[in-house]
Amino acid sequence: MSQPRYLTGDKAGIEEFLSKFDVFLFDCDGTCDLYQRDQLCNPEDGVLWSGDHLFPKVAETVEMLRSKGKRLVFVTNNSTKSRADYKKKFDKLGISANVEEVFGSAYSAAVYIARILTLPAPRNKVFVLGESGIEQELDAEGVPYVGGTDPAFRRDIEPEDFTNLANGSALDPDVGIVLSGLDFHLNYLKMSIAFQYLQRGAIFLATNTDSTLPMAHSLFPGAGSAGAGLVKAIGREALPLGKPSQAMMDAIEGKFHFDRSRACMIGDRMNTDIQFGIEGKLGGTLAVLTGVSKKEEFLTEGAPTVPMAYVDSLGDLLG
Amino acid sequence: MSQPRYLTGDKAGIEEFLSKFDVFLFDCDGTCDLYQRDQLCNPEDGVLWSGDHLFPKVAETVEMLRSKGKRLVFVTNNSTKSRADYKKKFDKLGISANVEEVFGSAYSAAVYIARILTLPAPRNKVFVLGESGIEQELDAEGVPYVGGTDPAFRRDIEPEDFTNLANGSALDPDVGIVLSGLDFHLNYLKMSIAFQYLQRGAIFLATNTDSTLPMAHSLFPGAGSAGAGLVKAIGREALPLGKPSQAMMDAIEGKFHFDRSRACMIGDRMNTDIQFGIEGKLGGTLAVLTGVSKKEEFLTEGAPTVPMAYVDSLGDLLG
Repeated sequence: MSQPRYLTGDKAGIEEFLSKFDVFLFDCDGTCDLYQRDQLCNPEDGVLWSGDHLFPKVAETVEMLRSKGKRLVFVTNNSTKSRADYKKKFDKLGISANVEEVFGSAYSAAVYIARILTLPAPRNKVFVLGESGIEQELDAEGVPYVGGTDPAFRRDIEPEDFTNLANGSALDPDVGIVLSGLDFHLNYLKMSIAFQYLQRGAIFLATNTDSTLPMAHSLFPGAGSAGAGLVKAIGREALPLGKPSQAMMDAIEGKFHFDRSRACMIGDRMNTDIQFGIEGKLGGTLAVLTGVSKKEEFLTEGAPTVPMAYVDSLGDLLG
Repeated sequence: MSQPRYLTGDKAGIEEFLSKFDVFLFDCDGTCDLYQRDQLCNPEDGVLWSGDHLFPKVAETVEMLRSKGKRLVFVTNNSTKSRADYKKKFDKLGISANVEEVFGSAYSAAVYIARILTLPAPRNKVFVLGESGIEQELDAEGVPYVGGTDPAFRRDIEPEDFTNLANGSALDPDVGIVLSGLDFHLNYLKMSIAFQYLQRGAIFLATNTDSTLPMAHSLFPGAGSAGAGLVKAIGREALPLGKPSQAMMDAIEGKFHFDRSRACMIGDRMNTDIQFGIEGKLGGTLAVLTGVSKKEEFLTEGAPTVPMAYVDSLGDLLG
């Protein structure tokens, strides 16, 4: 594996690098502002922003890429927010973007269900373990669902639930898919219902399987941990529709129809973003050091995941 | 591996088998009656009873073994009930037993914490993910704890929780152990608190890691599934204190001080009960066919776990 090229301050190198690509996929996980509370953000986390703090010259860099005719896709594993929620975030921070350029794991799952799985109705109904971001994206793709934020499921399990779930009378016969995402309201009842659907043959999907969620300068259980109980109970993994799963890359390509050899993934995490680009056989990958991974992680001999190039900060691409 | 001996109807065989042992460990998982609702019980599940239905001649068999001077230990992975709860169950069914003969995974964990770990106070405090059975056993061994059934933890996570957990202000500095069991009231807040303690170096224990809980003729998420999110988040397994973990066998031996070569494990599940006895190097194992495993499971060539002997029903030992 060759050494990644350091582009910060290298005007000619940047010019050459950018000319190789028509499409740039940006990581934009901003999990820290799930609650619109910016003090919860991890300042070290991200490519474009951290909470309400935009990294230097990000808006200008996005404009520069657009002026060169590049196509941009903003990719996120955060399933609790919809693309419309993200668009609001971009507007607030002054980054030009439209809803169609945002590709989140909830949307990825909705696209996968509606356009790839295409189960015959009415058996295409989804039992959702997650928040409203998933529901909005399923709505956008016309996929029927139950569960999710419905208050009827936000309660303790009762003795009669065991009977009614076991005999199926409390289950919806149309549910053919269980979709597991980050659920701040997970409980034993919802786990039990999802487990019953899986035992009855439902397809098992996950928006993403990140084990942790960076929040408030610490780590909290991520979508993968919220869904781990179900994985353990049924004894098999869910198909993940977020980075670094190639099911997400397929969904992105299915929507945008681009040439992978002319596309570049930009991200801060080696084991999700950069791996996602390499496994997807994109033409290039660019690591940005404002996020989780430090350069020692990929400059070390025998590093498992090495980007094609790296910059200290996204704004360095302005030269 | 030699074929297991079939003892039903074999009077001489039974006599010879019983003479080899001074101690009998009985599986007695009756998870189905967690809610004292007998209609939830799986009739095919058990060695001694199923709900309020005692298998034939069980009480008489227990009496026969006592009359021969055998020592009896009733072993269960069910952490939601205390030994005192089990004693009530025995009384109701007319089986002679005393509290000291019952050894559940919650008690096993309490014994392990109090007598083997022996962390110096006050750092021996436990954060409990589970029901009152665990709390009662920790109380019995004088182990301090927080969490468990405390209603303060039975609520949704709020934005300020992220901050207060991350900076530690909402954590108890004395907690040095996280104990995970079956929790019908699990939620994201409790998972997050436990995860914070683990990130700060707390010891990670589990009452047991059964993936499923047989209830109402179906399967529900077991203790192992309830705790799987935490395992995924922290990236390491908990030490299990229930069958088939040998930490439980060590705790049983630590309390009863018996000769393992003169002890026999009696149970209905190959992969928990019988494996528990074999790995614990007990003198013998006896499979009872009133429960989960069928004889085909261990009579097949190359079966992974084979008991020393088997009977159709425990009462067959009366000859």
